[in-house]
Amino acid sequence: MFRHIVLLAWTADATAAQKAEVAAQLGKLPGAIPEIRRYEIGVDAGLNEGNHGLAIVAEFDDVAGYVVYRDHPVHHAVIEEYIKPIVAGRAAVQHQL
Amino acid sequence: MFRHIVLLAWTADATAAQKAEVAAQLGKLPGAIPEIRRYEIGVDAGLNEGNHGLAIVAEFDDVAGYVVYRDHPVHHAVIEEYIKPIVAGRAAVQHQL
Repeated sequence: MFRHIVLLAWTADATAAQKAEVAAQLGKLPGAIPEIRRYEIGVDAGLNEGNHGLAIVAEFDDVAGYVVYRDHPVHHAVIEEYIKPIVAGRAAVQHQL
Repeated sequence: MFRHIVLLAWTADATAAQKAEVAAQLGKLPGAIPEIRRYEIGVDAGLNEGNHGLAIVAEFDDVAGYVVYRDHPVHHAVIEEYIKPIVAGRAAVQHQL
């Protein structure tokens, strides 16, 4: 398996509705991109100062499956329409699992 | 389950040996901290510019298990001795799974 992890931080003025909409829109991606084998979206629990706000952990059979996801127009539409307006930081790693 | 994700970025002058030692030292933590239920360490595959270098995905029964890990002296010793000398960035999320 090949895993993609991304952590997103939100702007100070991002609303709860906007953040929830990001999670809802991302949650549709496994239905649109069959290369996704596992897709978990987690909202930060608020235990620690300085954390990012949202985690996405996605698993694919291989690098090629991940690249399909990375470059998929439905994925890009979510990024452009819902994430970019409220994102303040992004950290990512892809690794073999 | 409760999941902790941390992504670490390295300084430009961190050596391959130093980075490998971080992974090796972290890999000992499940043997030292029984609250850890699952512990995965992934080195970034180098596909994308701007990525962080290392991912740690740890799972616990609950928040209390995570807090034991977070505050455990053996964990802190790894952070102080091996991570802090070469870390340039850190992003983290904890979430229910």
